[in-house]
Amino acid sequence: MLRSHTCGELTLKNAGQTVTLCGWLARSRDLGGMTFIDLRDRYGITQLAFNMETNKQLCEQARKLGREFVLKASGKIAERSSKNLKMPTGEIEIVVEKLEILNESKTPPFTIEDETDGGDELRMKYRYLDLRRSPVKNNLLQRHKVGQAVREYFDSNGFADVETPFLIKSTPEGARDFVVPSRLSPGDFYALPQSPQTFKQLLMVSGFDRYYQIVRCFRDEDLRADRQPEFTQIDCEMSFVEQEDVLNMFEGMVKHVFKKVRGLDLPKFTRMTYADAMKYYGVDKPDIRFEMKIVDLTPSPSPQGEGSNSLVKGKGFKVYDDAELVAGICAKGCAEYTRKQLDELTEWVKRPQIGAGGLGYIKYNTDGTLKSSFDKFFDAVGLKKIADKFSANAGDLILILAGPEAKTRKALGALRLEMGERLGLRDKNKFECIWVVDFPLFEWNEEEKRWFAMHHPFTSWKKEDEELLNTNPGAVRANAYDVVINGVELSSGSIRIHDRSQQEKMFNLLGLTQEEANYKFGFILNAFEYGAPPHGGIAFGFDRFCSMVINNEDYIRDYIAFPKNNSGRDIMLDSPSQIDAKQKKDLGLK
Amino acid sequence: MLRSHTCGELTLKNAGQTVTLCGWLARSRDLGGMTFIDLRDRYGITQLAFNMETNKQLCEQARKLGREFVLKASGKIAERSSKNLKMPTGEIEIVVEKLEILNESKTPPFTIEDETDGGDELRMKYRYLDLRRSPVKNNLLQRHKVGQAVREYFDSNGFADVETPFLIKSTPEGARDFVVPSRLSPGDFYALPQSPQTFKQLLMVSGFDRYYQIVRCFRDEDLRADRQPEFTQIDCEMSFVEQEDVLNMFEGMVKHVFKKVRGLDLPKFTRMTYADAMKYYGVDKPDIRFEMKIVDLTPSPSPQGEGSNSLVKGKGFKVYDDAELVAGICAKGCAEYTRKQLDELTEWVKRPQIGAGGLGYIKYNTDGTLKSSFDKFFDAVGLKKIADKFSANAGDLILILAGPEAKTRKALGALRLEMGERLGLRDKNKFECIWVVDFPLFEWNEEEKRWFAMHHPFTSWKKEDEELLNTNPGAVRANAYDVVINGVELSSGSIRIHDRSQQEKMFNLLGLTQEEANYKFGFILNAFEYGAPPHGGIAFGFDRFCSMVINNEDYIRDYIAFPKNNSGRDIMLDSPSQIDAKQKKDLGLK
Repeated sequence: MLRSHTCGELTLKNAGQTVTLCGWLARSRDLGGMTFIDLRDRYGITQLAFNMETNKQLCEQARKLGREFVLKASGKIAERSSKNLKMPTGEIEIVVEKLEILNESKTPPFTIEDETDGGDELRMKYRYLDLRRSPVKNNLLQRHKVGQAVREYFDSNGFADVETPFLIKSTPEGARDFVVPSRLSPGDFYALPQSPQTFKQLLMVSGFDRYYQIVRCFRDEDLRADRQPEFTQIDCEMSFVEQEDVLNMFEGMVKHVFKKVRGLDLPKFTRMTYADAMKYYGVDKPDIRFEMKIVDLTPSPSPQGEGSNSLVKGKGFKVYDDAELVAGICAKGCAEYTRKQLDELTEWVKRPQIGAGGLGYIKYNTDGTLKSSFDKFFDAVGLKKIADKFSANAGDLILILAGPEAKTRKALGALRLEMGERLGLRDKNKFECIWVVDFPLFEWNEEEKRWFAMHHPFTSWKKEDEELLNTNPGAVRANAYDVVINGVELSSGSIRIHDRSQQEKMFNLLGLTQEEANYKFGFILNAFEYGAPPHGGIAFGFDRFCSMVINNEDYIRDYIAFPKNNSGRDIMLDSPSQIDAKQKKDLGLK
Repeated sequence: MLRSHTCGELTLKNAGQTVTLCGWLARSRDLGGMTFIDLRDRYGITQLAFNMETNKQLCEQARKLGREFVLKASGKIAERSSKNLKMPTGEIEIVVEKLEILNESKTPPFTIEDETDGGDELRMKYRYLDLRRSPVKNNLLQRHKVGQAVREYFDSNGFADVETPFLIKSTPEGARDFVVPSRLSPGDFYALPQSPQTFKQLLMVSGFDRYYQIVRCFRDEDLRADRQPEFTQIDCEMSFVEQEDVLNMFEGMVKHVFKKVRGLDLPKFTRMTYADAMKYYGVDKPDIRFEMKIVDLTPSPSPQGEGSNSLVKGKGFKVYDDAELVAGICAKGCAEYTRKQLDELTEWVKRPQIGAGGLGYIKYNTDGTLKSSFDKFFDAVGLKKIADKFSANAGDLILILAGPEAKTRKALGALRLEMGERLGLRDKNKFECIWVVDFPLFEWNEEEKRWFAMHHPFTSWKKEDEELLNTNPGAVRANAYDVVINGVELSSGSIRIHDRSQQEKMFNLLGLTQEEANYKFGFILNAFEYGAPPHGGIAFGFDRFCSMVINNEDYIRDYIAFPKNNSGRDIMLDSPSQIDAKQKKDLGLK
């Protein structure tokens, strides 16, 4: 080794030792007779000291060194006169006796500091320099720890890490596949896997019993912010299990990782049905760090069967009378919102991403009076009844949206998160974990006018809903479940179909002819005829899981060493790019 | 869980317990009043017992079950009357009280036994059934253990597992890239990595200091037997190191894995230069489990400078007089080889794969006489001198090839391995590990009439050979090294170039114009200007490493869950295959 120690380990205990360090020049200061250099490596920073009086030549050499030069310095460890107790090595410095420049550096295009002056594009282009900055570097080092903890858990629970192929067959069902032209079989293509779904199921058919893999997956989607065309998945499957076994096993994994990496003991996960999540939070991945549930003001079907139990209908306010759904949330302590703030909120909900027609409100003033945006149609008693329905108190602000059921719930879900954000209720130090269960089996695709599998086509349905498959597919519930933490969906899983005729029925409901099903999925249909065990599993988005565990944030790009931009380009490599004419010819492409 | 225990864990200690097992019907026997079923899962086999007297109905049901049916059986654990002490569960059986068929199975197309009757193609097509057979299943479960041991070693030595991208830029230099057409940037392509080489070097530039990854790589080669278009690599890199540090670190890794997985303590690795490997073993990956070194009979340049010290030249035997190299090996105890055996060996060396013109021999008979294939030209003294050169004893057989240096050495290397095989010298229980060092930097490509990098273009050269770069590139030695175990090359590595001008010089020697170098490798040339540390590393072929560690064999296909055949096809998936016209159109392909 060119060094005897790293820049992160020397303390007063080592005083007097002669050591050799290697690293990068992070900062240098000339103080009259002395020059100090902060030498940085992966492990820390150690101060190098040069003295004009005792070693003029070396000190002058040190003064000429630029930022990010790679140095090798030898000398004795001495106690610093001016200590920095914020860093582990802050009590010592190396009185340098020998200095070697291992490599020079041009001036970096942005500062290598925790807070840098470099813009996004520039940092992407020089990603290898951005990775020198502590926040990004630490994310990746922590990501390694998350992976270690994941493997530790699975290894100790008898899961086998089995690698599945990357050059597979194109069977797009939902997102687009990336494809790879074959040279040996011109005109044919491999596809890159969107997930190892069918392979892990085949491993269950093979009797592997418990499988996991931390594996790259690929989806050729039109990229949105913070999506990557390639991403990493923690992929798992178990045999001879029921849903409850799967939930317990993977809840255990999440807890183990939080404990190992963050030292946190997570409480038992909340269980919530998809129906409840949509009803109370307007979204299938609720952030329950704060309450502020959605309250319906249009009646749900009740034994009484009367519309009269609605608090908003029949008052002559056409917007509410005509609306399929009128519902709202109660923002605690916001009764003092000004006209301007309310106008701004109204504009916010009318943005195309939210799409509400307008925003109704009731201010429950601190003096006990009630003031609404629809006072014309409601008396104080009517408003009070609504306020009571929200369990509102004096000082609260009720925000109401009206419109078609699904759209309005979704808008309310977004408004709820926005208000939670504004009120500081989305606590960075809090983790609220939920299992959302009983997802619908299908969702309707208006564009293609057919049912799509909400999870994927290998998900089984609830036995008790089986009769609905032919009459009302939209109402069939799946044995499917998601892990949601703080409003971020981290994983999806299901109990799978393991019977050929059921799988064929599923493909049929998704609009595949028998011929198509056999061409694309014949191998797994066949496999189901040779003793497929009951099985189920789950997959975690590893990039997002890391961003949540490490920093409780939902932004994956800073947790990937070499990410692509929002157009799927690698700016550093300048890829995708042209290839040689010969390469194209070999592949039969023009 | 559908079961209370697995099929591999119950013993006499559990006698009397009521348990539930799930698994596959491996075998069933009807013995008059009793029926026995061997129930198999990943963990083992447990015998189920059914009694016609005590439970006629259940016993009759059991008699109807076919092979590979998936069963769930409950009952009491009883001591067997006829024990099988070869298996852990062989002293007990389950007296079944309740039986459920979880899934049926058609009759498998081949037997699910250690020795199966299925041919290669059939087993590839039904790979999920082949994976049920213990030898293949165990290979994959052991592979997981190898991976665990590798990670354990690197984790504890401060290496960070950092994931590198799969959708990169095409920069073929040697093997062909697989490419991936971009939909968002029509006409452009990503490439799949042949290795993460440049990325791990960038991580060193970033200061990650120690990196590893177990990662899939891709090479679009014309497939030979036992090559796969996708393969897994243990990829590693370290900063601030010299060659010796790298060798010690990764020798430690190999030892750790053998200890953990096989319980074996490997001795210190032998070091051998590439020159010696070629000279004595005719190959750059010698199997030194047995001696039988190649002995030169043409003189090597000597201070005396005379041809007269050759033992074979100038005797009037034209074949030897004209040959650039005459050399041989001594097969101990083979003097009794018959004419037929020698003829067969002669045919063997004349096969195109070996390509020798003929085979000379000297039998050193047990009675002390010498008999050669070229007796016409040599007297007994001449033959004895040759025999002495081989340190041959009575009873030995000397085999001699003659011809051009490189080709003849290679042929002798192959003959040596063949004789070692025939003589049973390649001991399955022995592991001989070597570091082959001082590889040449370049090798000449006759087809393209230019130098290729023998390792890869990022390998540094020995400082003392620098002057030869311009005058005699073929003689320049690289800071490159291979791990070889029992004649199998398991890994290659090198100390890298970390200086822009040296890297440019290298590209230039490989025939790249400055423009091409910048287009393909600009990102890494740039990176070298911002403080690149000295660094080096290595990559292990993980598939082959597993096959060596687990079974001391060199056949990777049985260590990969879903391999491709020798034409690069996945027979089970039937891939590569046609894709939709719409997919092609989206990608701008026709």
